[in-house]
Amino acid sequence: MKYKTIVSAVIMAMGLVSVSSAEEPIQVIKPVQNINLAQVELGKKLYFDPRLSKSGFISCNSCHNLSMGGTDNIKTSIGHKWQQGPINAPTVLNSSLNLAQFWDGRAKDLKEQAGGPIANPGEMASNHTLAVDVLQSIPGYVREFQLVFGSDKINIDNVTQAIAEFEKTLVTPNSRFDQWLLGKKDALTRDELAGYELFKKSGCVGCHNGPAAGGNSFQKMGVVEPYKTSNKAEGLAAVSGKDADRFKFKVPTLRNVEMTYPYFHDGGAWTLTEAVDIMGRLQLGRKFSQKENSQIVSFLKTLTGDQPSFLMPILPPSNEKTPRPHPFD
Amino acid sequence: MKYKTIVSAVIMAMGLVSVSSAEEPIQVIKPVQNINLAQVELGKKLYFDPRLSKSGFISCNSCHNLSMGGTDNIKTSIGHKWQQGPINAPTVLNSSLNLAQFWDGRAKDLKEQAGGPIANPGEMASNHTLAVDVLQSIPGYVREFQLVFGSDKINIDNVTQAIAEFEKTLVTPNSRFDQWLLGKKDALTRDELAGYELFKKSGCVGCHNGPAAGGNSFQKMGVVEPYKTSNKAEGLAAVSGKDADRFKFKVPTLRNVEMTYPYFHDGGAWTLTEAVDIMGRLQLGRKFSQKENSQIVSFLKTLTGDQPSFLMPILPPSNEKTPRPHPFD
Repeated sequence: MKYKTIVSAVIMAMGLVSVSSAEEPIQVIKPVQNINLAQVELGKKLYFDPRLSKSGFISCNSCHNLSMGGTDNIKTSIGHKWQQGPINAPTVLNSSLNLAQFWDGRAKDLKEQAGGPIANPGEMASNHTLAVDVLQSIPGYVREFQLVFGSDKINIDNVTQAIAEFEKTLVTPNSRFDQWLLGKKDALTRDELAGYELFKKSGCVGCHNGPAAGGNSFQKMGVVEPYKTSNKAEGLAAVSGKDADRFKFKVPTLRNVEMTYPYFHDGGAWTLTEAVDIMGRLQLGRKFSQKENSQIVSFLKTLTGDQPSFLMPILPPSNEKTPRPHPFD
Repeated sequence: MKYKTIVSAVIMAMGLVSVSSAEEPIQVIKPVQNINLAQVELGKKLYFDPRLSKSGFISCNSCHNLSMGGTDNIKTSIGHKWQQGPINAPTVLNSSLNLAQFWDGRAKDLKEQAGGPIANPGEMASNHTLAVDVLQSIPGYVREFQLVFGSDKINIDNVTQAIAEFEKTLVTPNSRFDQWLLGKKDALTRDELAGYELFKKSGCVGCHNGPAAGGNSFQKMGVVEPYKTSNKAEGLAAVSGKDADRFKFKVPTLRNVEMTYPYFHDGGAWTLTEAVDIMGRLQLGRKFSQKENSQIVSFLKTLTGDQPSFLMPILPPSNEKTPRPHPFD
């Protein structure tokens, strides 16, 4: 009994220490602010519209599925004609908090990112001209672009702007960890708090910090020990051209990490237990005990926030003028 | 002016004749009644869950996309590893009104249908044992099955029951045509009413009748002239074994037909204009003039009802016990 009392006191003290969440290395996710709601509603339709792909089958939501943590939950994504993608699809949730987009940061923001997969032959396999032609043929879209952008002439700039604006709404506030940060001291269990302390003390927060617990720096995958993978991605070096940037990847957000398996740029780890173990050994030179690992995992699961909640969009139909999909050629 | 007055009087008279919608060959779609809402909510998750497929990528909604009229809007569907499906995906909208499911009627109801694609090697390519194992590994599902069916032991019978119950909610009442049937005489334009009259008088209603304007009989494709297609589907004969049933297909519903392109079992017609022309010639031996065709098409577009409106479901995450998806083998 006495032991439990002491432990409780220690936990309460830990709680008190972090009354001000600004002092914590991970900060609360703020709800969406300053949003152009008309762009959001249009962007939501575009995000779900497979007609942006050559096949008419693949939409943004195919690989960044908002029913599943904004990912596809497979190692590397499936593209046009079932091509195997080169890298794990990062979650779109809270991606507005990233310092840049893609694992190698090759797009500076969500808008630039949104244009990528549409025209990537291994992903949606369309091109910007065709995608715009498809939308321009559909009166329902033309009217909405007119309303939102003041012009009935659709262009890829407005398309990606609308998609990006929708994606900005995909933040996940109100996780139990955030509730704790905001003062609800019983929001976390003893094990979860112990896991958070371990997460801080052992150095995980060195990279996984800020509101997204990641997404704000590029770091080398395999600091203490090299990471073994058959995946060919080079990371930031592919963008910067610097040899020193080889295997540097954007640190993934840990928000909603329970939902965004498998982990790492190659999707090499299926479970949080495995991911925590590998990160400990390769990045920190530390072998977490089973208990430590389990505590960190239980902390990580407190980072699951309110998932985006919205009505499934209804897409305006194509017509005789709409360029047809070509799924099989 | 006088001519217009006469036309208006004729139209008004036509309206008066059909004051009682029971006298019309097409009746109103009724809103959903007698639904098990708990099963619906569970079924909605399952409908959107790609973990029912081997790849982890294909869900019911992939080919019966509720953003796009409950179809995939391609000629024949894309299955596991991008296999080309043998037949056009029929809409799931109002499918509870069908006398049987699939083009050849091989499933007697929605529940029986729901089990088909999961285990079809060319579609979702899983099997019922694996699909149930996946769901049984996920605590979020186990709890919900327990709540809904009173047992924490999941079986395929309950899985397909829940999916079917969700699908029963996918009716589309309140189309402009239904508003007209219910007495709102200005709900249809002059051309739309003329199109409906033509649709009745020329015999289209012989097959496209009832609340779904179809779905309630099997009819031969190509009565007056044979239908030319490279598609190998045999229709009802594949189920009945009777030679007389060759090329007999379930008459598709015309509800929301503006959204369910391309048309026919082989997806051979991309536009309503083309479909109406072919149907007129092959089924009725009648070549509709351009004006007649256009009037019928404008009538058909009044059959688009309120699309199902619901929050995008959030799926419970997999864990270390969940059988992994196998997209590439």
